[in-house]
Amino acid sequence: MDAVLKVLADNHGSYLRDLAEFVAIPSVSTDPVHASDVRRAAAWVAQRLRKAGPIEVETWETPHYPAVFGRWNGRRHMGTAGAPTVLIYGHMDVQPPDPIELWHSPPFILTARNGRLYGRGVSDDKASMLLPILAAEAFFLAGEQPPVNLRFIFETEEEIGSVSLPPLVRERRDALACDLVLSADGGMWRPEIPSITLSSRGLAGLSFSVRGPGKDLHSGRHGGGLANPLHAAAELVASLHDGGKVAVAGFYDDVEAIHPVLRKSLEQLSFDEKKYLADVGASAGFGEPGYGMLERQWYRPTIEVNGFYGGYQGPGGKTVLPSEAHVKLTCRLVPNQRPDDVISRLRHHLENYCPPGINLAIKETHDGAMAYRVSPDSPAVRAAADTLAQIFGIPPDFVGMGGTVPITTTFREVLGADTIFFSFSTADEDIHAPNEFYRPERFRLGLEAWVLIWRNLAKQLHGR
Amino acid sequence: MDAVLKVLADNHGSYLRDLAEFVAIPSVSTDPVHASDVRRAAAWVAQRLRKAGPIEVETWETPHYPAVFGRWNGRRHMGTAGAPTVLIYGHMDVQPPDPIELWHSPPFILTARNGRLYGRGVSDDKASMLLPILAAEAFFLAGEQPPVNLRFIFETEEEIGSVSLPPLVRERRDALACDLVLSADGGMWRPEIPSITLSSRGLAGLSFSVRGPGKDLHSGRHGGGLANPLHAAAELVASLHDGGKVAVAGFYDDVEAIHPVLRKSLEQLSFDEKKYLADVGASAGFGEPGYGMLERQWYRPTIEVNGFYGGYQGPGGKTVLPSEAHVKLTCRLVPNQRPDDVISRLRHHLENYCPPGINLAIKETHDGAMAYRVSPDSPAVRAAADTLAQIFGIPPDFVGMGGTVPITTTFREVLGADTIFFSFSTADEDIHAPNEFYRPERFRLGLEAWVLIWRNLAKQLHGR
Repeated sequence: MDAVLKVLADNHGSYLRDLAEFVAIPSVSTDPVHASDVRRAAAWVAQRLRKAGPIEVETWETPHYPAVFGRWNGRRHMGTAGAPTVLIYGHMDVQPPDPIELWHSPPFILTARNGRLYGRGVSDDKASMLLPILAAEAFFLAGEQPPVNLRFIFETEEEIGSVSLPPLVRERRDALACDLVLSADGGMWRPEIPSITLSSRGLAGLSFSVRGPGKDLHSGRHGGGLANPLHAAAELVASLHDGGKVAVAGFYDDVEAIHPVLRKSLEQLSFDEKKYLADVGASAGFGEPGYGMLERQWYRPTIEVNGFYGGYQGPGGKTVLPSEAHVKLTCRLVPNQRPDDVISRLRHHLENYCPPGINLAIKETHDGAMAYRVSPDSPAVRAAADTLAQIFGIPPDFVGMGGTVPITTTFREVLGADTIFFSFSTADEDIHAPNEFYRPERFRLGLEAWVLIWRNLAKQLHGR
Repeated sequence: MDAVLKVLADNHGSYLRDLAEFVAIPSVSTDPVHASDVRRAAAWVAQRLRKAGPIEVETWETPHYPAVFGRWNGRRHMGTAGAPTVLIYGHMDVQPPDPIELWHSPPFILTARNGRLYGRGVSDDKASMLLPILAAEAFFLAGEQPPVNLRFIFETEEEIGSVSLPPLVRERRDALACDLVLSADGGMWRPEIPSITLSSRGLAGLSFSVRGPGKDLHSGRHGGGLANPLHAAAELVASLHDGGKVAVAGFYDDVEAIHPVLRKSLEQLSFDEKKYLADVGASAGFGEPGYGMLERQWYRPTIEVNGFYGGYQGPGGKTVLPSEAHVKLTCRLVPNQRPDDVISRLRHHLENYCPPGINLAIKETHDGAMAYRVSPDSPAVRAAADTLAQIFGIPPDFVGMGGTVPITTTFREVLGADTIFFSFSTADEDIHAPNEFYRPERFRLGLEAWVLIWRNLAKQLHGR
């Protein structure tokens, strides 16, 4: 048996203990109350990376939260007929566990149940980002050198739009210089068939508040005389769509027609929409008319309201005409749409539709991210496809991703490197929702896959 | 000096201590967590009424919360050339204090500040319902008999639509038999001019929930493919109005034209809309086109959303496509509109407008109440007007009330008695909102007014 794979098999129990330790740190980057936990996660990752072998590890401070960097330069560089340099990306921050009462086990205690591993962040992205660290360690423990030069960058702000990472990548472009990025974030499409994701959607977000009267008022005494902020917010939200299509002027202007390769992959995929709807518990699909479910989720832009609140929410009723209402929303973008342009169109739309007697305050909430795509013909995609075919015994599907990995655009712009999504999370693992989970077999196969892809990349990229 | 008024003057300090004790009981009827506090308030009122004099006091249990009844029958009955019997109504339950962080002093500690008395429920309706108890006591302490026979009924469910009171009034119609009801609930229009309210609006309410997917989903992964319950709820809420006018089919069908007397009063009132808007902190008025501010608030029906919530409300953002959204709303009705008819039209409307992929669940939340009005020519209204003219030195305005006192309709139907609103709260006292307050001078004048109105009623009604 291959010595590296034997190390992996022999140590699997300790890898699960590592994962449990990692999940136990509630590194919720969206909520300032968890600031020290986010920093604790960074310290844990730095320490674990150091333990993995002769890797130089640095913690890079930013104006907000730190990132953890690692470098192993044991191979001669590709330019001198040596090995390629691969940058591995992942994130250690997680979403809030709300609504916490819907969890069947405590969100920050890794819990094995029903053949799954439950915990907030286990799928997005803690288990998947731990794999390359452990794979590198396995090479060193087996007395082998990894077949490629390694760089690691693990950030703490992915769930808040990777605020600090783009400037950090620019500042540290020399340390991060590489031939290819492998992202441990960005899950596979399905549990049963391996897949490689060739595109992700971009992101733009804003929140707005509408204010009517200066204080909460009795809705009997005052009702009928004044604009109700809940009515105004509802009208504004309703005005954003018309029968599933976004109704913001110019929203679709910059959207390019779908790439022929993607169109073809889309047509060849077998997709059971009924099963999907049953899985998510929806009675029907809904969205932009004229497009199929997958095309809408992967290749069409959206506006989704993520939160809407105002007035009385307690038990029973309260006859109040509230002073304020609040809406949080995000847009998913496709290639060629600029986040700042989309935000400015939205801003214009909301200001236009705001009714009399209502004051509107708009706040941009996410650093925008452009959409991303990579060509299926690139040697790196071929190396990844070969690896997954070896591990799973069937060739991977090429798919799109509805979510966002904002950093891909930065890596291309600053480092000139493509990013290949190489995550062993799966899209059905309830990330950002209660009872997030990971599949234990993926934790095992993923470790082997990281060993193999470095070997395959060394061959594919060396021969370029 | 009149002996009864002297007693009032001598004991004013102790009346304020009574009020502080009463306010300290958080009798929030809308929230089951306060069930024992509501019962504690009933016990407190029963004990205070007993202490006031030779009044027979009973606590009447209902399937929900109890009511407190009192009877003093010292005068011969009007039918035998004696005095009229007057039923005094008030309620001891209060609204929730939310949003609690906006209070400048603890809501359940009566706090004197800026020449006002602050506390949840002090204006609605604890101070005003305490006045007739204290006024009756003053007669007994002065060695005089009250000039009318007295009945008291204090309920604990006004803020939840007086659920148990109508059946209770029917069951106890003999004990409650009276010539007139004086309601200690239903505040005056303005602080500077006395007023008598000749109408109140009715109430109908419902809550609805919309459900899309069976669980919260990642809005990147799934967005664009499924109906978002927040969008659906916003569309439903937006569909209820069209430019300030209610857009529910048939909503205005049963609305009668305004009564000529009310039309005339409305035209004669001086109303400073700019000042009103400044007082409530609104930049403009808004509502049904073609009607003035006061007409919209007193004599036109409304739909107001009181609460709207779903998705993420915490700090920062969360890219979630939520499973559910919830809306609470109430309608204010005018004479001739039936609550059950309005609810059924609303139900029909919501079901009609609910978009595909969304499940709608509707729940009626308030026992409906018809609107109420009383004639300005009645002897009781004349007695009340004379009293206020004596106390304030100027004749009262005749006004309408935007809010609801559901029990007026029941009193008329079951007891055959008109209700005169005789409260010393004022409409600007932030009832149902943070920092509810009462005016100390009204607490003093109100006590004298109750003494005088019984005397005036004895004359006016006796002579009928």
